[in-house]
Amino acid sequence: MASIVLNVKRAKKVIKTALKLQNLTGIVRLNLYLPFNLIVTIIIPTMGKEIPSRSEDYSQWYNELVKKADLAEHSDVRGCMVIKPYGYSIWEKMQQALDKMFKDTGHSNAYFPLFVPKSLFEAEEQNAEGFAKECAIVTHYRLKTDPSNKGKLIVDPDAKLEEELVVRPTSEAIIWSTYKKWIQSYRDLPLLINQWANVVRWEMRTRLFLRTSEFLWQEGHTAHTTSDEAVKETVQMLDVYAHFAETFMALPVVKGRKSEGEKFPGAIDTYCIEGMMQDGKALQAGTSHFLGQNFAKAFNVQFATKEGKLEYVWGTSWGVSTRLMGALIMAHSDDDGLILPPKLAPIHVVIVPIFRNDEELVRITNKVDELASTLRKQGYSVKFDNRDNYKPGFKFAEWELKGVPVRIAIGPRDLDNGTVEVARRDTKEKQVMKMDDVATSIPALLDNIQESIYKKALTFRNSMITPADTFDELKKILDEKGGFVSAHWDGTQETEEAIKNEVKATIRCIPLDAKEEEGKCIYSGKPSGRRVLFARAY
Amino acid sequence: MASIVLNVKRAKKVIKTALKLQNLTGIVRLNLYLPFNLIVTIIIPTMGKEIPSRSEDYSQWYNELVKKADLAEHSDVRGCMVIKPYGYSIWEKMQQALDKMFKDTGHSNAYFPLFVPKSLFEAEEQNAEGFAKECAIVTHYRLKTDPSNKGKLIVDPDAKLEEELVVRPTSEAIIWSTYKKWIQSYRDLPLLINQWANVVRWEMRTRLFLRTSEFLWQEGHTAHTTSDEAVKETVQMLDVYAHFAETFMALPVVKGRKSEGEKFPGAIDTYCIEGMMQDGKALQAGTSHFLGQNFAKAFNVQFATKEGKLEYVWGTSWGVSTRLMGALIMAHSDDDGLILPPKLAPIHVVIVPIFRNDEELVRITNKVDELASTLRKQGYSVKFDNRDNYKPGFKFAEWELKGVPVRIAIGPRDLDNGTVEVARRDTKEKQVMKMDDVATSIPALLDNIQESIYKKALTFRNSMITPADTFDELKKILDEKGGFVSAHWDGTQETEEAIKNEVKATIRCIPLDAKEEEGKCIYSGKPSGRRVLFARAY
Repeated sequence: MASIVLNVKRAKKVIKTALKLQNLTGIVRLNLYLPFNLIVTIIIPTMGKEIPSRSEDYSQWYNELVKKADLAEHSDVRGCMVIKPYGYSIWEKMQQALDKMFKDTGHSNAYFPLFVPKSLFEAEEQNAEGFAKECAIVTHYRLKTDPSNKGKLIVDPDAKLEEELVVRPTSEAIIWSTYKKWIQSYRDLPLLINQWANVVRWEMRTRLFLRTSEFLWQEGHTAHTTSDEAVKETVQMLDVYAHFAETFMALPVVKGRKSEGEKFPGAIDTYCIEGMMQDGKALQAGTSHFLGQNFAKAFNVQFATKEGKLEYVWGTSWGVSTRLMGALIMAHSDDDGLILPPKLAPIHVVIVPIFRNDEELVRITNKVDELASTLRKQGYSVKFDNRDNYKPGFKFAEWELKGVPVRIAIGPRDLDNGTVEVARRDTKEKQVMKMDDVATSIPALLDNIQESIYKKALTFRNSMITPADTFDELKKILDEKGGFVSAHWDGTQETEEAIKNEVKATIRCIPLDAKEEEGKCIYSGKPSGRRVLFARAY
Repeated sequence: MASIVLNVKRAKKVIKTALKLQNLTGIVRLNLYLPFNLIVTIIIPTMGKEIPSRSEDYSQWYNELVKKADLAEHSDVRGCMVIKPYGYSIWEKMQQALDKMFKDTGHSNAYFPLFVPKSLFEAEEQNAEGFAKECAIVTHYRLKTDPSNKGKLIVDPDAKLEEELVVRPTSEAIIWSTYKKWIQSYRDLPLLINQWANVVRWEMRTRLFLRTSEFLWQEGHTAHTTSDEAVKETVQMLDVYAHFAETFMALPVVKGRKSEGEKFPGAIDTYCIEGMMQDGKALQAGTSHFLGQNFAKAFNVQFATKEGKLEYVWGTSWGVSTRLMGALIMAHSDDDGLILPPKLAPIHVVIVPIFRNDEELVRITNKVDELASTLRKQGYSVKFDNRDNYKPGFKFAEWELKGVPVRIAIGPRDLDNGTVEVARRDTKEKQVMKMDDVATSIPALLDNIQESIYKKALTFRNSMITPADTFDELKKILDEKGGFVSAHWDGTQETEEAIKNEVKATIRCIPLDAKEEEGKCIYSGKPSGRRVLFARAY
């Protein structure tokens, strides 16, 4: 051991560098007590990657999980997030699956401008009014050097736009103003188009994935000759969303219609899928709107019928967004981190070698190469975590945090026995498996995990639909248990509004499969023909 | 025949509807000469889908082709285009191929905010200065109802942002401000990230795909421990672009470095690939920048080395955009429309039935179903154009316009003979093929077309590199022949600027394979060590 003399500034730098080397960030405080005591305090907020437990603080659990699992983080732009590579790769898997479903149902992708001139934006009044309060507005098209502050820039007042541009919060306006040029006769219909894009809705209180000022989404915009056909399209796309949520995200959803108060501005009818999160709050995971002829009339989009008459076109629009990432995370994950359904997991299998020296690592690596290649050939993504600066325990925790569905551990003894240890992320169950069985057993295990995650979520969701016959019951359920409350409602916006103000719960939807049933509104006592689902929601 | 009496207004409407039914747009003029002559004039600008020839007006040929082939059109937003489904499907194929190449070279996708706060934007001064004049600026975040004009909206003056947001013209600033949080030690490097996104650069004169205020692109942003590694990455990505251009787009490119005057603002070195269009103008198809430590210093991104020292990170960035669509169109297409290389064609084979009645169509359809399914199983996209309201000749012209590489025509006689007529789009050659041979011959034919389009473009491009040893020669070549002019240059920005001002040609690049050769600058007469390529360019 050698000792060196450092001044305080230099000492601070050395310690900071040492921390950086271990991927730690901390606050270093040096207090010099004369004549000879130097107290070094290193405050490291989190040594590892621990996250709070759900029961402790569900909201904080979610926030920390999103960050620690490398899914997303807040950016230097108010309300906008950075989607990190690991998070983005899940979104890419979602995109691929959805895009295929859209194409299989006859839709094509296209791209429309980011900006909407104000005069187009305001053409459909309800839509414009609905989004006006949360629009980012471009007013200038140039910066110039600040004459009073060299090296700094200011907005050039001479470059003011004649007409302001709205950064799209949704694209109905710009798309229907285009459809006017594309649609002449019934032969041009149906027009079935989807767009993958970013949109901006200015949010005051943001949460990663769930509510951000900019988010990524897809928006389908279709045009039809008849009302019937447009309604069919609206319902078809709702079914596509529900199928995607259940099959890929392992997220059971209720399909339903929104009340007047909750529907999309500019729509005649909004259909939605609603999921249930582990904290008992509902989350709207996708919407599909029947627009009637509202946008066709606002933008004068008419078509010549077979009989030679001119009629307004019927429209739909439908979308899901990066909000689905929030739903995915909150529906399944636990206190140790993410639980990802295999169909959306960027890495299906992680292999962790257990070794004491290089020679053992080499032997294990040879076997792993073979094993990984077999699995990869079957289309699975396999990660071999052969880092030599982390212990297996650390690696186990890290891959659990990141939600990799299956972990395989191999040590020297496994090589001798021709076995591996296989652990599934969802239930944490471990089993010893013969190496020769891995190629056939892992695919089956992954299928089993996918199904099992869905079933667990379904059982939970079903347990969280509680009927209430009085307003007091509704309040009690919301406060004590949470979840969906199935109750009668008189169908008026006033009642909906009053309930919302009193208990902070909204009508999530009128389920499509709600059975006809005579009842009385829990709030007004007026007659009701079916139950609707109330819940507090994200 | 029945006759009806119409008033002028009604007559106009009937005629307009009749036009719409045939997908025509025209101006209808009715002049009533009393007592009894009604003159109906119908002016239809273009009956079919004809485009001007290249020799007539190359620029107009391009504009019309882009629109008539349903690739893109101008939107209602100044300078922004709508990418139509057919055009977008080509872009999707480009994206897929490039994305795979990026991932195969170890990159991951991520997503960073659309907006850049002005203070971050101006951090790297050269970069900020380079883009300041073409930035869309968000200054407000809300609209409100115009108190003096009900139903209209105005920007809410109370919703002015404290700090203006720049709509990203490129993302170095926002990404490096994020990298600062991600990079602590050498273990975090290299960081290899790509983003697919829209960017905005305010343009005064726009052209579809080639120069639009908003465009789609990918931007790679990587960080490294050493200068060498970063340079290697820069060159590697240039090679990826060149490989993509040649293999997928069938576009031969020159790889080179940009001069000081033409490099990316904020870069140490810009590498590029340059293509040659049929009109003798060059087109920059992709760039890859070695950023040195410029952005690391501007955003204070340091890493701890293995030895425990703190050093600034080395960076690269590289991008290609929807501009590639312009290059693809201009490099290969002819006076009849698009010529698409099979690897990027949304439809590989179109099958047109030749029939006189329904019975014949049914017989042909049965055979086509079989044929199409065989081809689809091999991964080819097949379109059966069985529309009954267009003649085969019209269909042939339409699919030629759209650049479908192979057309198969089948009539009743073909059914009897067990043959089909196969026409290739690029050379217009036709051949009669046995039906049984289609499954094996079409794949080979498509490969042949891909290669043949590339070879044609390569022969042309090579013929368009002309050496010049004097400034007069350079001028003459540029004016009479066009293309690249290979000439000596003294390496100074002044000379480059002077030549540019005199002949409107820029140094496209200093080719990577330029051989060392003693020479004199064609402009200044000063010594030069190698030839560079001058050209007029898009």
